[in-house]
Amino acid sequence: MIIVMNADATDKQIKTVDSRLQELGFKTILNQGDVMTVIAAIGDKRLIETESLESMDGVKQILPIREPYKMASRETHPHDTVITFDNGVKIGGNHNFAVMAGPCSIEENPDHLLRIAEVVKQSGAQFLRGGAFKPRTSPYDFQGLEEEGLRQLADVRDKTGLLVVTEVMDSQEVPLVAQYADILQVGTRNMQNFKLLKAVGRQNKPVMLKRGMSATVREFLLAAEHILYQGNEQVILCERGIRGYDSTFTRNVLDLAIVPVLKRLSHLPVIVDPSHATGHRYLVPPMANAAVFAGAHGLMLEVHYDPDKALSDGAQSLNLEQYAAVMRTLNKVTAFYQQEVAQAECLIKA
Amino acid sequence: MIIVMNADATDKQIKTVDSRLQELGFKTILNQGDVMTVIAAIGDKRLIETESLESMDGVKQILPIREPYKMASRETHPHDTVITFDNGVKIGGNHNFAVMAGPCSIEENPDHLLRIAEVVKQSGAQFLRGGAFKPRTSPYDFQGLEEEGLRQLADVRDKTGLLVVTEVMDSQEVPLVAQYADILQVGTRNMQNFKLLKAVGRQNKPVMLKRGMSATVREFLLAAEHILYQGNEQVILCERGIRGYDSTFTRNVLDLAIVPVLKRLSHLPVIVDPSHATGHRYLVPPMANAAVFAGAHGLMLEVHYDPDKALSDGAQSLNLEQYAAVMRTLNKVTAFYQQEVAQAECLIKA
Amino acid sequence: MIIVMNADATDKQIKTVDSRLQELGFKTILNQGDVMTVIAAIGDKRLIETESLESMDGVKQILPIREPYKMASRETHPHDTVITFDNGVKIGGNHNFAVMAGPCSIEENPDHLLRIAEVVKQSGAQFLRGGAFKPRTSPYDFQGLEEEGLRQLADVRDKTGLLVVTEVMDSQEVPLVAQYADILQVGTRNMQNFKLLKAVGRQNKPVMLKRGMSATVREFLLAAEHILYQGNEQVILCERGIRGYDSTFTRNVLDLAIVPVLKRLSHLPVIVDPSHATGHRYLVPPMANAAVFAGAHGLMLEVHYDPDKALSDGAQSLNLEQYAAVMRTLNKVTAFYQQEVAQAECLIKA
Amino acid sequence: MIIVMNADATDKQIKTVDSRLQELGFKTILNQGDVMTVIAAIGDKRLIETESLESMDGVKQILPIREPYKMASRETHPHDTVITFDNGVKIGGNHNFAVMAGPCSIEENPDHLLRIAEVVKQSGAQFLRGGAFKPRTSPYDFQGLEEEGLRQLADVRDKTGLLVVTEVMDSQEVPLVAQYADILQVGTRNMQNFKLLKAVGRQNKPVMLKRGMSATVREFLLAAEHILYQGNEQVILCERGIRGYDSTFTRNVLDLAIVPVLKRLSHLPVIVDPSHATGHRYLVPPMANAAVFAGAHGLMLEVHYDPDKALSDGAQSLNLEQYAAVMRTLNKVTAFYQQEVAQAECLIKA
Repeated sequence: MIIVMNADATDKQIKTVDSRLQELGFKTILNQGDVMTVIAAIGDKRLIETESLESMDGVKQILPIREPYKMASRETHPHDTVITFDNGVKIGGNHNFAVMAGPCSIEENPDHLLRIAEVVKQSGAQFLRGGAFKPRTSPYDFQGLEEEGLRQLADVRDKTGLLVVTEVMDSQEVPLVAQYADILQVGTRNMQNFKLLKAVGRQNKPVMLKRGMSATVREFLLAAEHILYQGNEQVILCERGIRGYDSTFTRNVLDLAIVPVLKRLSHLPVIVDPSHATGHRYLVPPMANAAVFAGAHGLMLEVHYDPDKALSDGAQSLNLEQYAAVMRTLNKVTAFYQQEVAQAECLIKA
Repeated sequence: MIIVMNADATDKQIKTVDSRLQELGFKTILNQGDVMTVIAAIGDKRLIETESLESMDGVKQILPIREPYKMASRETHPHDTVITFDNGVKIGGNHNFAVMAGPCSIEENPDHLLRIAEVVKQSGAQFLRGGAFKPRTSPYDFQGLEEEGLRQLADVRDKTGLLVVTEVMDSQEVPLVAQYADILQVGTRNMQNFKLLKAVGRQNKPVMLKRGMSATVREFLLAAEHILYQGNEQVILCERGIRGYDSTFTRNVLDLAIVPVLKRLSHLPVIVDPSHATGHRYLVPPMANAAVFAGAHGLMLEVHYDPDKALSDGAQSLNLEQYAAVMRTLNKVTAFYQQEVAQAECLIKA
Repeated sequence: MIIVMNADATDKQIKTVDSRLQELGFKTILNQGDVMTVIAAIGDKRLIETESLESMDGVKQILPIREPYKMASRETHPHDTVITFDNGVKIGGNHNFAVMAGPCSIEENPDHLLRIAEVVKQSGAQFLRGGAFKPRTSPYDFQGLEEEGLRQLADVRDKTGLLVVTEVMDSQEVPLVAQYADILQVGTRNMQNFKLLKAVGRQNKPVMLKRGMSATVREFLLAAEHILYQGNEQVILCERGIRGYDSTFTRNVLDLAIVPVLKRLSHLPVIVDPSHATGHRYLVPPMANAAVFAGAHGLMLEVHYDPDKALSDGAQSLNLEQYAAVMRTLNKVTAFYQQEVAQAECLIKA
Repeated sequence: MIIVMNADATDKQIKTVDSRLQELGFKTILNQGDVMTVIAAIGDKRLIETESLESMDGVKQILPIREPYKMASRETHPHDTVITFDNGVKIGGNHNFAVMAGPCSIEENPDHLLRIAEVVKQSGAQFLRGGAFKPRTSPYDFQGLEEEGLRQLADVRDKTGLLVVTEVMDSQEVPLVAQYADILQVGTRNMQNFKLLKAVGRQNKPVMLKRGMSATVREFLLAAEHILYQGNEQVILCERGIRGYDSTFTRNVLDLAIVPVLKRLSHLPVIVDPSHATGHRYLVPPMANAAVFAGAHGLMLEVHYDPDKALSDGAQSLNLEQYAAVMRTLNKVTAFYQQEVAQAECLIKA
């Protein structure tokens, strides 16, 4: 950590700051410059709130040097995390591409979910996604089938062999959802629900953490760190679009560059959800393919039996036929990417 | 609701949409224009997901007409909500100005909290704020004293007569926090933690809901609606700064214009937290005074015994002396506002 | 255009609005609903400022129906604009992919520019980019070689056969820059410099218009409309990243979904600049490839002789060797995209 | 400037960076830490592009220490700039409050402008604002009366004694506009039109620079620096709202906290335009009063003869009667602020 003192900081102020740093366990080096004094504090920044130092007399700025997360960082864990499921499916690393597809919400008719799952399976996906507990902006919108939805998912898993990813919205519901799901999803609106992060961190199912609506890269990785810190090392990061200033034509702004950024900073797998990010189905295929070339380890896609009658997010859902067509192309795209591009990408260091 | 059809929509497409609307319980009127057909659907939009209509063949756009919240809206509840506490203190309406002051986190030494509370009380505030459960971006930061912190707050309340506002972070902790607090605070990061909103909506303490980091006005009022919908009518809205694109000199962007916007759309009281919004103590006094003129019903202010040693948010906290000085001015400012400005403001209708 | 009246609008207010619309040349249809009256105004919205209608008594909301641009829209011009240069190179349409590469600024040593151009040419690009007039945030930064830079560009064009794209910053300099350039670039900071847009609209060279830092899709297409409206039909749109709330790891947020959005709304070619968008060279290859799959008609790439000594934007520039490697992959990627993906993408309508 | 080297930077890399810094004229100090080496480079950062250093091998991060502007900064110019006009009116410093009021655009009927000006004058404003050259997002909107508008302004100035502030949009028009105006306005969309900034910097009329739509504090002050650098020391900064993610209820987000931030960093006067910032007239009075308490040196207000028929920005314009009412309150508010608040605000240092 670097502490820059004001040009007119007095010797006493400099000394006070220096002492406080030493009190806090840092080794300090003073640079007396022509213009100002700079103190280099060596030690673990994670132990302190830099903001309180910033308000000391004579301090101009605190410049952190290390990233604030630790277990999520590639520095402490250089190799890619690869999550392996009982059936041999893997997420993360160089040679696995995960597709999670299904409806936004589980709806009443279980035959529809089964039909979707069959198409999803056939087209080459490994995971069935679907919400039983739904975070809804309005209390007047459909709130999900809850446990009934979880049962449908488990039932379809038994019939198809697909793994199940579904959202958990509250620390109290973690045990229930974990009973049915193969991956616990923490949604965008809960990315900084720290009690929930801790709760999913204390059980042993993989967690898919969706980026918050306006989360910075550091906040995102620190949210993952909360989970890792509780002992759960199986965390998947998911980019799903951030809040932009123009939602006329896309619901959110899909920030694909975060994929290579996260892969550089962290060892955790990164997937992309182009359906929620864009909100319009015609944008899903180009953004899905683009995500592959951004280096994503997988995709979440919304598919619905009859999107015009969906209880949530119909406009962004593909119907079964569209989904099958998208997957035919996507399978070629991922194969091409693996063969021709994946290696080449590593040539330029950050 | 207005459904605009594409210029080249076929009669069959128009008819299908019209039928679907009638199925959903709407009365419809067709406008056949030179350029396109427009369907006016009269009925309760809250019953459906407009997005699924949007994806029907031939539909260009759906234009909502009514605001999506109902109980939070001034249309259904024209008079200001005024929350009255046992000791006679009021929040909301025209003649009450609430000040909530105290440290960001409750820390170990209970004498410090008591000393802060005495100054807070003396200067004219009615509420002591302070966090026992702390939502922290990093797992390595101080997470709060939890129940021990709540006990300190209750103890200081007994000694000073101040009312207590403190954050609850998880649905499971609502009963515990409600036992000690006079107002339950739902923090920025939990504005769309719907299980928590429901939980605080089902008990009978006032709730202060902080605006999410990038929440729109509608999302904010819909979050309040989740609480109201459960039967709790005592909701206070709090603007605390939104995420901006430049955090070099202010932590967030304080959006003061939301105060008159919310007062027009809703009957709920609106307060402002200039400490978290700006992140720098020298910005607190001008923004606090400005908030009064924006029409806020109250303020949250951070005060710390020794800001340079605060375990959280030191840089934005006032020390006791600064706080007392700020309040001396603020008291004059609110009095002047009541006498000379409050009435005049109402002359221009929205 | 749809005018929604307040629930409590009086008959007189409705009549006044209706008359004013008719005065303005609209044909009107009144929908008297249970809740409110809605007026459909049929005619050319472009003739009026809707905002002034919005402030009339009794008006709740004005809902536009048509996009506000006309010449830039695909509705009035269904086929892709393809720009053809004297040497047969094309931009736009289905089968052309344009690469514009070169240094951010033209610097003193003309041999460096020539060397870059040779590599650019060899690797398969058709355009040399380079700034002679530089828009610089700080007056202390290098402001460009001006005419001397233009001469270097022209000289290298003669030697290599590459076409030249370079920025013009002011209406007064349009004739000078047009004398040397094959494409006139209007930069991000000038996207709404309307006098400049008009000036480039009145000459007959193609114009590449970069999206403004926080320009909406409509503002971007309206800026293009200013150029088209003056008679110049050769406009290329360029996405180059928008302002985000986190510039710690990427300079801007590359908004790739705008590519298919623009291609749906407009017939104009769309290219992507991943160098300025990300600001870091390791992000350029994945984002360049991703842009191809988003459907871009071309790319702008920054290449420098010796990026560590660049007078501007060194950190995002590729060196010659890196550039050549990126292009080897890119050429395979664009070929694969043409063969396997381009057609498939069109299956899902907006 | 602080250069932080990677943890695994080699001695050779450190040496190369150190040498390059010395070549560039910096004095350097090396801190060899346990974790990494940090180089403090003392000298004028303004001479170099830090980005090119950032891309050197082994460099992790460059941390600037001084603000990049110089003439605009309070460090080099501690006393407030006060601009004095021929008639004795002043902008800036502690005891002057400037009001600039008038229509968005000058329209055909000169009697209307005169009538507005009379009310503006009577109510206590010193400046008449009004656009003759209008930057319009759409080419189909009214583009302004141009020189005819300037003549109207000058004529009204002669009749009323008000000073005139009007926009100049292009470097070529600076001499013409300067002939008529007392203050040259550079609009939001031109904040980084550097040729225009240079042109207004080379003449000797005061310039009012409006903040760009998504300009950071540094970009704003660097734009002012471009003007100052050409020799014109009379620059007024104007906050007019920034782009937000929710324009449903306010056009932009009024960032009032930038007022005290700018006053701390710079000596230049700062005014606020609540009309453009909010876009709705009912928001103008509370935001105008709030701006006073944020410490603004003045306000721009839109007033129109008949807002419902305005050719631009009608919805945010006050009519004459509303304006007069707003000013009656504002005059009391500014007086109260001067007497009771202005001094008190200075107690807390940044």
